[in-house]
Amino acid sequence: MFADLWIDEFRVPPGKKFKLKNYDPGWTGGKEFADLGKHAAKERAEAILAERVKELTDAQELLYADNRYAVLVVLQAMDAAGKDGTIKHVMSGLNPAGCQVFSFKQPSAEELDHTFLWRLARCLPERGRIGIFNRSQYEDVLVVKVHPEYLPTGRLPTGKVNDKFWAARYEDINAFERHLVRNGTVVLKFFLNVSKKEQKKRLLARLDDPAKHWKFEAGDLAERARWGEYMKAYEDAISATSTEWAPWYVIPADAKWITHAVVAAILAKTINELDLRFPVLSSQDEAALVAARKNLEGKSDSPQFGEPGT
Amino acid sequence: MFADLWIDEFRVPPGKKFKLKNYDPGWTGGKEFADLGKHAAKERAEAILAERVKELTDAQELLYADNRYAVLVVLQAMDAAGKDGTIKHVMSGLNPAGCQVFSFKQPSAEELDHTFLWRLARCLPERGRIGIFNRSQYEDVLVVKVHPEYLPTGRLPTGKVNDKFWAARYEDINAFERHLVRNGTVVLKFFLNVSKKEQKKRLLARLDDPAKHWKFEAGDLAERARWGEYMKAYEDAISATSTEWAPWYVIPADAKWITHAVVAAILAKTINELDLRFPVLSSQDEAALVAARKNLEGKSDSPQFGEPGT
Repeated sequence: MFADLWIDEFRVPPGKKFKLKNYDPGWTGGKEFADLGKHAAKERAEAILAERVKELTDAQELLYADNRYAVLVVLQAMDAAGKDGTIKHVMSGLNPAGCQVFSFKQPSAEELDHTFLWRLARCLPERGRIGIFNRSQYEDVLVVKVHPEYLPTGRLPTGKVNDKFWAARYEDINAFERHLVRNGTVVLKFFLNVSKKEQKKRLLARLDDPAKHWKFEAGDLAERARWGEYMKAYEDAISATSTEWAPWYVIPADAKWITHAVVAAILAKTINELDLRFPVLSSQDEAALVAARKNLEGKSDSPQFGEPGT
Repeated sequence: MFADLWIDEFRVPPGKKFKLKNYDPGWTGGKEFADLGKHAAKERAEAILAERVKELTDAQELLYADNRYAVLVVLQAMDAAGKDGTIKHVMSGLNPAGCQVFSFKQPSAEELDHTFLWRLARCLPERGRIGIFNRSQYEDVLVVKVHPEYLPTGRLPTGKVNDKFWAARYEDINAFERHLVRNGTVVLKFFLNVSKKEQKKRLLARLDDPAKHWKFEAGDLAERARWGEYMKAYEDAISATSTEWAPWYVIPADAKWITHAVVAAILAKTINELDLRFPVLSSQDEAALVAARKNLEGKSDSPQFGEPGT
């Protein structure tokens, strides 16, 4: 089982300063995989993905029947790091009745008239469901930290947008997530860690392929130019918000096949570790089922009211 | 100005054990009012209410124009303590465009599938508005504490519903309110403190007056029978959640005229203490207004496109 290894490998320990340089975007399975050679390693990862997706499908059904827990998956990353592809490959086996994906882009005027957590809170998964946030509450301490001009500044009571301001946002996010976890929502946060070099390759690929042109936005280049500031914002945010109750996982994202396998493995393992069970009926309820069977079998096509059948 | 006196008198100091016995439900204005005699005291209170409602109306307009703050008013009380009447008398002068009242009763099935704060979060007032919660997040540590059977117990991850469980709920509520306050929502919480004796009188009055029969519910008597448990739950909740950022006010509620005057006075004073201002235009914006006036005055009824008018 790679999942245990991987959970330890990519989980950011709470309470410690998180350093991006300790997490290699180009990691492709470590020693175990390297020994296989690249082609076999990729096949192995794809097999793991397929197994885990199968496992997730079963786990989701149980999550739904058990009806005590919800699962919230937060995906954050730079452009072209593979968020959409991860959702597609890891979640495609799931029953859409129990899985909700929400993408958070520029907030609306109504959303800006509320606190930054408001629009997220409205989209939380209910009991029995898996909710996926494609971007999330963390946009408000990442892109907004790099672009403080996006803050509805004139309308915030805070005088200064300084370290204290961001520390308060981290604290609010942690309290928000703790409340969710206490009430049965498992919170899993993935940062898809792509290198600047690999991003360049993928953005160029979008330009080369007319079928991918729609994914290219000129604004992506402006953000790419501020790579260092973004990495600093990620380091600060992940350091402050990888908690016991809602840890961050920093997932190598230069090779998509490993990204998908690792996310699927961590997700499946986390759900399977919940004490999920199909609801057990009381002896009274069981007796009612016996009576119902009797009724259905003995009475089919018999009058429904008055005299007994047969 | 009675407001300063009253704010100090009825505000529950944070961090101290709150004792209901120190707050008299039958208080009717203290020494200053007692000297007037009952009739004059009531008239005085009604005059204060009228002044404050006028003040609130102006404050609301400014709150809306300023567009930086929201105000959340939480009303909690036993049945017949006067929540509906307080909303009616204190808020009736307000422009409904800037004032939203939400009543929270038994949660729906969808709401029970989320954490207890979810349904509240959806109804928060946006910037520039006053939101009123007729019952609130506190129902989940008051009526639910007296009736733990209302908890979706089988579906909560918590094993035991013990002191630790309630302490976690208080902590979550405090963090939730702190987040609101940090982001510009002023949170004011009023407990309308009616005596058991006065409640009896009011419930009987409902039975006597056919026009009030619709307000009487047989269930009210069952809750009345558990008065002591409710008072204990209020003491615990108010002790734990009267914070620097979102204090509780315990309002005498045996005389409606004093309830309304005190709530209006505290609310008006709190809003007036915000640094509200009509937006000031930049010199550029002012110049644009001059140009607009010129355009409107010089060009009225002239062709809109092409050649300049006159």
